[in-house]
Amino acid sequence: MDYKSLETHFAPFLSHRMARRKLRSFWAGSLPEHVKPHPDPIELAPGMPNEGLFPLESMHLNVVRDPFQHLGYTKKSKKLHAGVPETDPDFCEREFVKDKVDSGSVVDVWRYEPDCQSALPLAAALQYTSTEGHPQLLGFCRDLVARLNPPAYDEWGVIMNNGSGDGLFKVFETLCDENTTALFEEFTFTPTISNAEATGASVVPIKVNLTNDPETQGIDVEYLRNLLENWQSGPYAHLNKPKLLYTIATGQNPTGRTLSQNKRREIYALAERHDLLIIEDDPYGYLKLAPYRSEDPLYNAYKQGEYSAQDYCDKVLAKSFVTIDHSGRVVRLETFSKMFAPGLRLGFIVANKFLLRNFLELSEVTTRAPSGVSQAVVANVINAWAKNYATPQDAWINWLMKVAGEYTHRRNVLFQALYDTDAYRKGLFTVLGPSAGMFACVVINFEKFDKVTTETRTKASTELNYKLREEGVRVVLGSDMAVNPELSFERSSFLRITFAHAKDDEELIEAAKRLGKGIERLYDEF
Amino acid sequence: MDYKSLETHFAPFLSHRMARRKLRSFWAGSLPEHVKPHPDPIELAPGMPNEGLFPLESMHLNVVRDPFQHLGYTKKSKKLHAGVPETDPDFCEREFVKDKVDSGSVVDVWRYEPDCQSALPLAAALQYTSTEGHPQLLGFCRDLVARLNPPAYDEWGVIMNNGSGDGLFKVFETLCDENTTALFEEFTFTPTISNAEATGASVVPIKVNLTNDPETQGIDVEYLRNLLENWQSGPYAHLNKPKLLYTIATGQNPTGRTLSQNKRREIYALAERHDLLIIEDDPYGYLKLAPYRSEDPLYNAYKQGEYSAQDYCDKVLAKSFVTIDHSGRVVRLETFSKMFAPGLRLGFIVANKFLLRNFLELSEVTTRAPSGVSQAVVANVINAWAKNYATPQDAWINWLMKVAGEYTHRRNVLFQALYDTDAYRKGLFTVLGPSAGMFACVVINFEKFDKVTTETRTKASTELNYKLREEGVRVVLGSDMAVNPELSFERSSFLRITFAHAKDDEELIEAAKRLGKGIERLYDEF
Repeated sequence: MDYKSLETHFAPFLSHRMARRKLRSFWAGSLPEHVKPHPDPIELAPGMPNEGLFPLESMHLNVVRDPFQHLGYTKKSKKLHAGVPETDPDFCEREFVKDKVDSGSVVDVWRYEPDCQSALPLAAALQYTSTEGHPQLLGFCRDLVARLNPPAYDEWGVIMNNGSGDGLFKVFETLCDENTTALFEEFTFTPTISNAEATGASVVPIKVNLTNDPETQGIDVEYLRNLLENWQSGPYAHLNKPKLLYTIATGQNPTGRTLSQNKRREIYALAERHDLLIIEDDPYGYLKLAPYRSEDPLYNAYKQGEYSAQDYCDKVLAKSFVTIDHSGRVVRLETFSKMFAPGLRLGFIVANKFLLRNFLELSEVTTRAPSGVSQAVVANVINAWAKNYATPQDAWINWLMKVAGEYTHRRNVLFQALYDTDAYRKGLFTVLGPSAGMFACVVINFEKFDKVTTETRTKASTELNYKLREEGVRVVLGSDMAVNPELSFERSSFLRITFAHAKDDEELIEAAKRLGKGIERLYDEF
Repeated sequence: MDYKSLETHFAPFLSHRMARRKLRSFWAGSLPEHVKPHPDPIELAPGMPNEGLFPLESMHLNVVRDPFQHLGYTKKSKKLHAGVPETDPDFCEREFVKDKVDSGSVVDVWRYEPDCQSALPLAAALQYTSTEGHPQLLGFCRDLVARLNPPAYDEWGVIMNNGSGDGLFKVFETLCDENTTALFEEFTFTPTISNAEATGASVVPIKVNLTNDPETQGIDVEYLRNLLENWQSGPYAHLNKPKLLYTIATGQNPTGRTLSQNKRREIYALAERHDLLIIEDDPYGYLKLAPYRSEDPLYNAYKQGEYSAQDYCDKVLAKSFVTIDHSGRVVRLETFSKMFAPGLRLGFIVANKFLLRNFLELSEVTTRAPSGVSQAVVANVINAWAKNYATPQDAWINWLMKVAGEYTHRRNVLFQALYDTDAYRKGLFTVLGPSAGMFACVVINFEKFDKVTTETRTKASTELNYKLREEGVRVVLGSDMAVNPELSFERSSFLRITFAHAKDDEELIEAAKRLGKGIERLYDEF
């Protein structure tokens, strides 16, 4: 497959907006052959400040080896530890940082790095740059994809973006029009619906199986197949046949479901047959959780060292749709938000080179490049970690496993506490445990609630939410994340809960108690 | 004027896209009064990682007092000085940074800052945040506007964006449709044309006066008045009457022209009369250049301490259109790109609260907040500087004056060298000196070129560009920045040059020589 054949196949997928959204550049322009440009030209052309005008000379990043490393420090500081008072006997202001600087565990970002091509220096990071991203970080991301999720064709590439929110906007803006039909999982991250609908596109929900069975959970493939095969006689016959499927295939938000590899193959085959693009949003994939053992709830395969980095890559992580994509129809979105920090606003898109060029053109007239400071932080931290590993990807994978280990622990603590509530013992709820990501579903067994009928179930859900707010735990109602709450009514009696944000184990345990109590109160008081 | 009346007046200005571009949020929702929420709720709702999972504990910024401060250092390093070899007798690797850390001139950014509300700590900067920006930086920007350019009405506000490129995209996307006509200065930053045209809008160029006279330079107000008063009988009668005027009013790109206060008042009166929005893009306004003295070319009023900070604010800076805007029709865009660093991708929009809410809604489903790391760098550096000043704005103004002083110096060096060329002495070009910004125009006096006729002038411009590339100086052709090169033909015989990017004085002098030589060669060889 070459670029030309990609263009032939995928040009009809572009929105009519893309036709008129072209960068009017005044700085390009090639030279005819007879002009021999000076070997050392002086730039009076670009409106770029000289780097000597930037007020930063260097940046020094105090980086941890492990998440929550500060909890092990002997000395405590208000500036590193939440809520530590100055009266704490171990309180100090900042000695530990001096130690770190002295011990060389600080990552230096200098104005120039003439001797280290993989470092991203400030002179570049703070300057105008190419919209696709700095080569130091872009190369890292590309190599990461090639290592963990190699696409099944050659003409693919990567561009950086301002996080997956920005990436999804660009993908839908590039591909969707008033006449586009887009398929979404019936429960989804609702701002993405806004991205599609803002273009005028219609969003059609696809039924998902809310089960713990790893083979059947997630998108209901038979439903999808039936819908596509019988589009003209189905409920959406008034809409055009769909052009794309948007899926959060691993650790889905809000359901926490992960598509099995078998399902991915079946869905890809359907996409081939019906010429669908697959938009694979994967913010949570690296947060692969080790299995929960009910007989030993706090057992954590990561912390036991049960997985080697090779195991994590080969056996633990779910494989992206791109790994079975031989025709270039999968657009994959990754982000540094969950594995590094959301405030970076930094992610990247993997796609075939024709689509990628269009996403890039949209970026050229909107955001331009993502923050160079954010890029410098990520690139240089990984670069510094890489000194102890065979490749930067190995260094990053080592960090990913540590974070996944923390999430596994948090999941364990929360689940043990949930299973320990009276409400659970009475069968008032069940839990859909995720194999990846930061979300679990607490499914309310309304059939056990004598006074809750089909007619009053929505009212009961609202009432439950109020009781939980009174008990002091905030959750998200499944119905609030449905594309079409009416259509998904039968499957929407769940609460999305996350173990990502709580302060510590104690808070997770307390949250489970409050959750149980709120559910019991609904049972007693509704 | 209240919000309601703003809405009444400005709602008809919104594009039809804005009607369907609404955030589908699943996390909002208010509580009825009878629900008494727990005073200390635990969050199982938001998909936000706990800050203990972020790999940064603190960030230490090595900040300068003055631009190009490093040139005064006794010791030299490859990491701070471009092209310094290790064989330099003063070469060192990093001692000077240790000195800086020890002397306390490093700005610390900690995970928490419980005792300092104006600092922006990492726990917030690295986290998901409100799309309008962190309060620490947003408040600073609002106060800066109130100090330097107070709008002439009350219901205005500020939101951050990812630099003015992103800001302009959002402004045009919010306001323009297929049936919109937008007025632009006839020479402009061409990617902004792309922003307007991508919405389907039509861009109509407005004649500008390319003169050194401070009262008449820039937009030709009579041309504008005539066009608006006689729209139906004019050349654009097939288009709707215009809805907005886009202007870079100070240090215009590419012409370097600045609109006088009189012109601003006249243009604002026309906007009132014809109900136009004024989109004021102001990346260069703070780069107000001190006057060039031909009898003493290197004289620099900034470096002579001729301006107090108060003078700079009251007498030196041009006043924004917002200062005469009593009906909320001016949208002002500022950026940190030129005064801090472009790689931050950080700027802000000043507008009436109704329009601002719409820009914010667009941001909510596209970029979300700009990089928190970028925001933390700017907010904390200004916050640290502020310790020596009455207000953070005073600290920032002090820095702005230093940067403006550097640009004045660079302009002086380049102009002296240009006036010293044979080509200038022969009258082959004149220079349009800017009173602000980073751009000047070198106007080629084609009437002195015997062999260049009206018919061959375009060819001669292209040829000149080739010769300059051969001589080793890169410039931008004025015609490449025209909205409509044909219409602007008579006024487009100029080169846009900038003194912003060159390495040092020597390079600027060499560039002037090469420029002169290239022009002479065109004269001799065309």
